[in-house]
Amino acid sequence: MFTVYGKSDSGNCYKVKLALEQLGLAYRWVEVDSTRGETRSAAFLAKNPNGKVPTLGLADGSYLPESNAILHYLAEGSALLPADRLGRARALQWMFFEQYSHEPCIAVARSILRYLPPDSPRRAELPRLQERGHQALAVMEQHLAGTPFFAGGAYSVADIALFAYTHCAPDGGFDLARYPAVSAWLARVRGQPRFVPLPA
Amino acid sequence: MFTVYGKSDSGNCYKVKLALEQLGLAYRWVEVDSTRGETRSAAFLAKNPNGKVPTLGLADGSYLPESNAILHYLAEGSALLPADRLGRARALQWMFFEQYSHEPCIAVARSILRYLPPDSPRRAELPRLQERGHQALAVMEQHLAGTPFFAGGAYSVADIALFAYTHCAPDGGFDLARYPAVSAWLARVRGQPRFVPLPA
Repeated sequence: MFTVYGKSDSGNCYKVKLALEQLGLAYRWVEVDSTRGETRSAAFLAKNPNGKVPTLGLADGSYLPESNAILHYLAEGSALLPADRLGRARALQWMFFEQYSHEPCIAVARSILRYLPPDSPRRAELPRLQERGHQALAVMEQHLAGTPFFAGGAYSVADIALFAYTHCAPDGGFDLARYPAVSAWLARVRGQPRFVPLPA
Repeated sequence: MFTVYGKSDSGNCYKVKLALEQLGLAYRWVEVDSTRGETRSAAFLAKNPNGKVPTLGLADGSYLPESNAILHYLAEGSALLPADRLGRARALQWMFFEQYSHEPCIAVARSILRYLPPDSPRRAELPRLQERGHQALAVMEQHLAGTPFFAGGAYSVADIALFAYTHCAPDGGFDLARYPAVSAWLARVRGQPRFVPLPA
């Protein structure tokens, strides 16, 4: 039995929920609201000194943070991780792309528009986040023009990682109609067995 | 035979060089200077549409970008990747930490101070980068107070990933004397077999 410490409307936390559901693994969910400082409490920092959700509680009493490390851990030995060495590397390639070139633009733009007041000075960041987010979406569009999924030709944790903040990119002001291959891929992900949506 | 497309004084590219040297793998190095626009050429974008170094050329004619995905690929089956599932997840945990919470602060501060003119408006980013970079170093300090290396108790690709921009953090204005456990770990990394330094 796993315990997910997470914020329900966080894409990074949703990744873990979607993987657990699709792998049919038992878990309980403990809501931790980072916007109310709950990731900076002493009790939470004892679980993850970096103060971020999601953090996965394991059966041995230890904790595993970092959404994409959690995905990889859960998926090892399953159909959600490619069986060959280069396929696994391709999955990780796209998961590192997600955390470096995609999430810091698209998820942060969503966060500013969703959680901060309309007069927040952080709105000044939006033009740069938009520019870089569209660069990331263009890289995805180019890749998906030639393949149905990100790694190894089949649905994998790389798709889960990238679906999380791509499907809600409109919350960050991104118009996905400009990306037909990305839009078709989003529909393919939604059509996977045991798919569950991001909680509203 | 691998081909590394990289910039010699980039920490992300140095990770790949250090792993190849320590694994005793043959490679050739092709210098690509991102500060002169060489990662935006059509020839380079055909190798990595995301326009970043390092990118690894493989024997099958394909290319693998993302420094930490490359590290994981090279290290599979070697002593540089933990042999157990949780150990591998811990290595990835720290590699994702490096790309999300460490590199975007410490490497970017170094880049601003090293490559941009003293009157660059991007110097305004330095206080926030300093604050977040010190948060990352504090997380590392806490972890290393109880273990000699980042994952599984032994030297691994997680150490290579974090060494790359930690050892040159002073270039970004970070005083490492504040972090004795980090400093002792840097010395342990430098003492590993076949260690090679970042080119001056």
